[in-house]
Amino acid sequence: MVRILILHGPNLNLLGTREPAVYGTLTLGNIDHQLSQRAQQLGVSVDTFQTNHEGELLDRIHAARGNFEGILMNAGAFCHTSIALRDAISAVALPVVEVHLSNTAARETFRHHSYVAEVARGVVAGFGPLSYLLGLDGLVEIIRSQSGPGIEYVR
Amino acid sequence: MVRILILHGPNLNLLGTREPAVYGTLTLGNIDHQLSQRAQQLGVSVDTFQTNHEGELLDRIHAARGNFEGILMNAGAFCHTSIALRDAISAVALPVVEVHLSNTAARETFRHHSYVAEVARGVVAGFGPLSYLLGLDGLVEIIRSQSGPGIEYVR
Amino acid sequence: MVRILILHGPNLNLLGTREPAVYGTLTLGNIDHQLSQRAQQLGVSVDTFQTNHEGELLDRIHAARGNFEGILMNAGAFCHTSIALRDAISAVALPVVEVHLSNTAARETFRHHSYVAEVARGVVAGFGPLSYLLGLDGLVEIIRSQSGPGIEYVR
Amino acid sequence: MVRILILHGPNLNLLGTREPAVYGTLTLGNIDHQLSQRAQQLGVSVDTFQTNHEGELLDRIHAARGNFEGILMNAGAFCHTSIALRDAISAVALPVVEVHLSNTAARETFRHHSYVAEVARGVVAGFGPLSYLLGLDGLVEIIRSQSGPGIEYVR
Amino acid sequence: MVRILILHGPNLNLLGTREPAVYGTLTLGNIDHQLSQRAQQLGVSVDTFQTNHEGELLDRIHAARGNFEGILMNAGAFCHTSIALRDAISAVALPVVEVHLSNTAARETFRHHSYVAEVARGVVAGFGPLSYLLGLDGLVEIIRSQSGPGIEYVR
Amino acid sequence: MVRILILHGPNLNLLGTREPAVYGTLTLGNIDHQLSQRAQQLGVSVDTFQTNHEGELLDRIHAARGNFEGILMNAGAFCHTSIALRDAISAVALPVVEVHLSNTAARETFRHHSYVAEVARGVVAGFGPLSYLLGLDGLVEIIRSQSGPGIEYVR
Amino acid sequence: MVRILILHGPNLNLLGTREPAVYGTLTLGNIDHQLSQRAQQLGVSVDTFQTNHEGELLDRIHAARGNFEGILMNAGAFCHTSIALRDAISAVALPVVEVHLSNTAARETFRHHSYVAEVARGVVAGFGPLSYLLGLDGLVEIIRSQSGPGIEYVR
Amino acid sequence: MVRILILHGPNLNLLGTREPAVYGTLTLGNIDHQLSQRAQQLGVSVDTFQTNHEGELLDRIHAARGNFEGILMNAGAFCHTSIALRDAISAVALPVVEVHLSNTAARETFRHHSYVAEVARGVVAGFGPLSYLLGLDGLVEIIRSQSGPGIEYVR
Amino acid sequence: MVRILILHGPNLNLLGTREPAVYGTLTLGNIDHQLSQRAQQLGVSVDTFQTNHEGELLDRIHAARGNFEGILMNAGAFCHTSIALRDAISAVALPVVEVHLSNTAARETFRHHSYVAEVARGVVAGFGPLSYLLGLDGLVEIIRSQSGPGIEYVR
Amino acid sequence: MVRILILHGPNLNLLGTREPAVYGTLTLGNIDHQLSQRAQQLGVSVDTFQTNHEGELLDRIHAARGNFEGILMNAGAFCHTSIALRDAISAVALPVVEVHLSNTAARETFRHHSYVAEVARGVVAGFGPLSYLLGLDGLVEIIRSQSGPGIEYVR
Amino acid sequence: MVRILILHGPNLNLLGTREPAVYGTLTLGNIDHQLSQRAQQLGVSVDTFQTNHEGELLDRIHAARGNFEGILMNAGAFCHTSIALRDAISAVALPVVEVHLSNTAARETFRHHSYVAEVARGVVAGFGPLSYLLGLDGLVEIIRSQSGPGIEYVR
Amino acid sequence: MVRILILHGPNLNLLGTREPAVYGTLTLGNIDHQLSQRAQQLGVSVDTFQTNHEGELLDRIHAARGNFEGILMNAGAFCHTSIALRDAISAVALPVVEVHLSNTAARETFRHHSYVAEVARGVVAGFGPLSYLLGLDGLVEIIRSQSGPGIEYVR
Repeated sequence: MVRILILHGPNLNLLGTREPAVYGTLTLGNIDHQLSQRAQQLGVSVDTFQTNHEGELLDRIHAARGNFEGILMNAGAFCHTSIALRDAISAVALPVVEVHLSNTAARETFRHHSYVAEVARGVVAGFGPLSYLLGLDGLVEIIRSQSGPGIEYVR
Repeated sequence: MVRILILHGPNLNLLGTREPAVYGTLTLGNIDHQLSQRAQQLGVSVDTFQTNHEGELLDRIHAARGNFEGILMNAGAFCHTSIALRDAISAVALPVVEVHLSNTAARETFRHHSYVAEVARGVVAGFGPLSYLLGLDGLVEIIRSQSGPGIEYVR
Repeated sequence: MVRILILHGPNLNLLGTREPAVYGTLTLGNIDHQLSQRAQQLGVSVDTFQTNHEGELLDRIHAARGNFEGILMNAGAFCHTSIALRDAISAVALPVVEVHLSNTAARETFRHHSYVAEVARGVVAGFGPLSYLLGLDGLVEIIRSQSGPGIEYVR
Repeated sequence: MVRILILHGPNLNLLGTREPAVYGTLTLGNIDHQLSQRAQQLGVSVDTFQTNHEGELLDRIHAARGNFEGILMNAGAFCHTSIALRDAISAVALPVVEVHLSNTAARETFRHHSYVAEVARGVVAGFGPLSYLLGLDGLVEIIRSQSGPGIEYVR
Repeated sequence: MVRILILHGPNLNLLGTREPAVYGTLTLGNIDHQLSQRAQQLGVSVDTFQTNHEGELLDRIHAARGNFEGILMNAGAFCHTSIALRDAISAVALPVVEVHLSNTAARETFRHHSYVAEVARGVVAGFGPLSYLLGLDGLVEIIRSQSGPGIEYVR
Repeated sequence: MVRILILHGPNLNLLGTREPAVYGTLTLGNIDHQLSQRAQQLGVSVDTFQTNHEGELLDRIHAARGNFEGILMNAGAFCHTSIALRDAISAVALPVVEVHLSNTAARETFRHHSYVAEVARGVVAGFGPLSYLLGLDGLVEIIRSQSGPGIEYVR
Repeated sequence: MVRILILHGPNLNLLGTREPAVYGTLTLGNIDHQLSQRAQQLGVSVDTFQTNHEGELLDRIHAARGNFEGILMNAGAFCHTSIALRDAISAVALPVVEVHLSNTAARETFRHHSYVAEVARGVVAGFGPLSYLLGLDGLVEIIRSQSGPGIEYVR
Repeated sequence: MVRILILHGPNLNLLGTREPAVYGTLTLGNIDHQLSQRAQQLGVSVDTFQTNHEGELLDRIHAARGNFEGILMNAGAFCHTSIALRDAISAVALPVVEVHLSNTAARETFRHHSYVAEVARGVVAGFGPLSYLLGLDGLVEIIRSQSGPGIEYVR
Repeated sequence: MVRILILHGPNLNLLGTREPAVYGTLTLGNIDHQLSQRAQQLGVSVDTFQTNHEGELLDRIHAARGNFEGILMNAGAFCHTSIALRDAISAVALPVVEVHLSNTAARETFRHHSYVAEVARGVVAGFGPLSYLLGLDGLVEIIRSQSGPGIEYVR
Repeated sequence: MVRILILHGPNLNLLGTREPAVYGTLTLGNIDHQLSQRAQQLGVSVDTFQTNHEGELLDRIHAARGNFEGILMNAGAFCHTSIALRDAISAVALPVVEVHLSNTAARETFRHHSYVAEVARGVVAGFGPLSYLLGLDGLVEIIRSQSGPGIEYVR
Repeated sequence: MVRILILHGPNLNLLGTREPAVYGTLTLGNIDHQLSQRAQQLGVSVDTFQTNHEGELLDRIHAARGNFEGILMNAGAFCHTSIALRDAISAVALPVVEVHLSNTAARETFRHHSYVAEVARGVVAGFGPLSYLLGLDGLVEIIRSQSGPGIEYVR
Repeated sequence: MVRILILHGPNLNLLGTREPAVYGTLTLGNIDHQLSQRAQQLGVSVDTFQTNHEGELLDRIHAARGNFEGILMNAGAFCHTSIALRDAISAVALPVVEVHLSNTAARETFRHHSYVAEVARGVVAGFGPLSYLLGLDGLVEIIRSQSGPGIEYVR
């Protein structure tokens, strides 16, 4: 069975528990639950982990070798600043899909570049919690198709 | 019934008809067919259009007002250079989802910025033809959910 | 009789027909009508043309040689990106006045530079539809005064 | 009666008095005279003031509150370097129209950016002394129209 | 009673314990003691915490919601590099005052920008240990005044 | 008795007299009064001066030698553009504390750099009128402590 | 027989028909005639096409597959701004030689970079109409030599 | 006896355990063993430590004061992003030699700058595991020679 | 008789009166005296003026037309920031020689560019008070030689 | 008879003698031989010279005055770094054609700018050894046509 | 027997002969002697050469093919400016180790980039004369190990 | 007797011998003659040397130690590109005065920075051949005055 590691980076633990009138009542727990249900539909297993510590993200990515077939990651602000994260992904050579709740291309300039995206297979951003579900769909498809989308398309 | 306009920008007409051994046999027609099927599953209608002319993309976006509830667009290379495209999307005020076959963040620097992304609701890139399907899923969800992902998430 | 070509670039066809409560009820047709009236007062003739196609703007500028004494142009977003437009103006060597509805200097950074302005005789921006009328006044004056404002002023 | 303050910045006092064969015989006094006549036609009053001192421009802008309904300003080279000028305009919250004799967009790069333009309502440049008259027309129109061109046009 | 969380970032634990002849004998403990005394005078309570781990700073900021009314923070070098820190402050929406022992504006260029300052209410830098005391005074005042200095001053 | 010169730069004269409902009723006179009271508490004397003229700020800084032991300065927008101001401070070699009402680090990019800060001993920004009082406290402390905070702290 | 497609981009239609005393009497028609004669000498066939529309250039490049062995192209100003043109050339994988009448390296900075050059086999610029003839010579040679100049030379 | 602390930063734990056919069978343990042997030859003692956590590197560097005479460090990707690491090295004032397995100057641009190198005594890069041994040789020599290579050489 | 205007910009009034042990006892008065003596030797007359006000420099440059044959100017820090100064020099069209006491090319980056130098005939920097004397020699020579050094030398 | 100087810059001596299986067997001698034959066909004489010393290139260019009517030059890497080379070409005022074996626009960024191209009449790049022959054709044509391609073409 | 060419670039001839009290008494001759001794220990032969002429460095690198198995090079300031040097190293395809006496990463910004480093196998900097010995050790090891450190390490 | 070395860099040998009607009849020999006469008046001896080879300039600067008390240098274009030249001047520690015939600050941007100026004592530019004489005067004065202008002036 295809196993997917889902990593949530810094500050995502705050989701939904703070000012629910404004940010909605969807907590990270709710998102993880939706992901589990979607995984079941897709016939894959998922493990989820949240941390505010860059080092723990690195440790988890390292440990994913042999235990997972792909990683779905919202590295949060670390995606803009952590070359170590980029190196870890390159090193373990697992397909990674990067997701973001907001459309980072429409926000401050310092959010436009992602070291993670440079080594990711695909990126989904701007759909809110749905970004995770779309990203999971895509990642599973990448893993299941042999040739994968690694071929260089016309554009 | 929710109506979606699907726009394919420059060079995408070449997809699949050239060197199928390398790029796969999936033509733009095949992708449009998959999109139609997916639309049927989602209970929405889709219209597709490809052009190598920026002006025609602008005309089509303008004409979408009142005729479509959202636009799924792979503006190709125009996304990097056309401020007019950005302005057209702002003007018609329809939700737009930008898709790319390849992961533009992992390619040349001049492909990292997209004027379209700045005014899009969501972005999907790197999954090959699947990018279109994921983007359609997300766009329909945006249109159907009242509050939409327009709210500013924690990240 | 002095003949003026008035060119409207991309997205300007949307003016006034969309959300009149917000953007006013003044359509591009209304602006053209005001321009005709003003032209009559000034004793000049005007031809107006709108297009979303950069190539058509180029064709029209080329065709202006011998048929018009000056060009009043709102190139829209093309003014920021089209070196071809700049070259066309240089080539036909007619006096060009650039107008903008909004004050582009007060908007996003990518709207601060205009290739058209580099070869225009004068620029009017920020007065809404009135920008066109002021620009027409100025252009006619430039054409009518022999020495013109081409001389290099103290500043 | 609408009252307009007209401010001329550094070096504009030299206009017309130097090498009239080259720069024309139009002095700043002549321009002010033309502006007075035009003001009479428009049914507004104008006060004019020239200085080479940035501080005096600031003092005058401050003093304009309550005494004038708008400011027509050629800040000369100060427009490129004075953030204090920008702040003063923001602070007094009067509509300001920026004018330049020459087309600054067609000159050296260091003349392309204007701090004044960022907070001005409209800009007129490149028409020589006529820039002032066109700018006055526009400013009076802005003041007289209630809604004004402050609404965000399509472009 | 107003409760203030005081956070010391990386390397600040070294303060005063190394080469006292050069750096003075004031340790971080001494500073914390001064802060406690000052807090007592102000009638507020303070909790202090030092760490060299960015993740622990994030955890502490998150935990401050509901337990503190404001945060006094010397994020050290993290202020220049951590977007995650900036996001955490934005997310918890508590007033933050940033302090620095040295005047970072007078040091290397890479110390001139602070992600923390972008979302802080106030900044105090260059007064040595006194920066903390002045920052505490200011933070308490911000919390106590209802309207706060959030209003946009003339400058 | 320690004597402090307090300098207010351009546009600060407008404080409080304009739209008090928005900006509060605190005028520059009120701030100066608070500073006088605080000075009395601290046992120091203060002289205050406001000007919109850069040259007068320079003259005053020069004249401060021998007559004052320190300068508390809100140079306003001049801090971003005046190298002459920086040179004057370096030349008179008096301790200078820079204050700003707003948190300039959280505003437009052109407000992030200050030539004054590069040669100031300390900086206080973002606390509104309180910035002045905190800055005065810090400046007096710097002057009174012999070794001063000039020593290079760990950070 | 080797077939060459010759593409002329925007504004080149103006060549020679305007101010012949200044620009010479050589029209684009004359250049095309010279190219035909030269092609005859070389034993190749040529088709020529001029347009001011970027989209038509893209369409023509696409249609060249299977119908031509190489493309000789003066993309005019589009070479500096059109990533779509670059992508089209990459996609059809035909050898392209870029020519310019003027030496673009000796003109304005914005003419120094060419997206077309990045994917062209060779570049000829600055020889006036002769640039086309030299470019044709080179292109035919590239097509006829099997190994071609694609090998990486010492420099 | 001279004591050396050897620090390995993020991702270096993966060395040798992954795809040995490609990366060689040399693990970090093997490198540490070689370093121990080399230390014995040099008559010095070494302690080695690997972590993926920036905070732990900082803690270890702090703790090195008084316990080690020098630090041999491969900070991995942290060298490009961590100003805190730079500050820690400055603060403990021990000689540091930076080593890298690969030649970072020949890789991506974002690997060309190192905050660690700015405060290191020497740098060795590109020799694979041998970089560590050469770095150790150099560090021990620096410690043993009194004047050290701190003197400013001609180049 | 050739008449030379000598202008000293901001902060130069401090020269020599402050800390004579460090900066020497040469005051601006002493320099002016040396310049008078040197002028007498050269058979020219000199007028000297110092100000900290940019506006006064502009006024003096304007007034120089007809009263002086050349200007020797140390604009101090204004040379880096004042485009108005550059415009004034261009406008009066008198030969200007720029002098600096220190070698500005060897100081901070923000002192490397001078708007004055862009329109000056010659520059002398780094010789201390002697810079003025050398500059005077050169300026007189420029005025006296008919062809002047305006011709474009090989380098 | 028209005399052409052909200059080969650094590293070009290695051509063809190294790894002929990879780089072809064409040596610089072979290229010079082809150039001689082509010169004979064109009825011109050629002198060729290769050096790795920038100074010798300068000496040769200087000596070309009076002895040659034009220079065909592959300055190799010096074209990117030598302003002296640019100055020498400007000084001797002979027409220069720059050639490169490879298409420098398609290589590393530091090869995109050429000081030589800025003062050359024409540029040929990317055709391998054929670049020299095409460049020679063009140079001879430039010399023989009186008006030359110096006229400014439409583009 | 492995043969190593040791190249010393500009200004290195001054080493040790100037102000020995400051720079030490170690001349370049002494360094060469140490290198000879070390070479003997390693069982390799060395040839050393110093020059201030870039062209001679190029000539020597060219001549190294077939006569040496590797090059140890301190190119001095040329490493920052000479693309020709980079090309020469690429062309001869011998392993090169770059050494510097000082730690260039800790000096002026213009010393941070090295064209030589981009094509070198390894870099040693900051150890004074010892840099040469460590570099020699590393170069010999690279040559002797078949696979070499050319494999891409984790970092 | 004070001995001065005068160095002329690349292309200066062409001075005066080419197109005397345009550039004047003053050759480098004439300038050297004037310098000799001026030296005699000053009671110093001069040696002059011109070369187009950077390496020879370096050699001469090295050889100046012990044989000259100062260097007067027009490094021509090398001043913009040669860090080696800068290093040589630093190394020999003789006072250097940089001169230029033209005012480099008023020419192309790439002529605005000089590596030589960064380590020179004084700079004279724009006076044509007179620049040399003024530079000689200044250099001799620097050498003769004990304290020299090395003291840091107010500006």
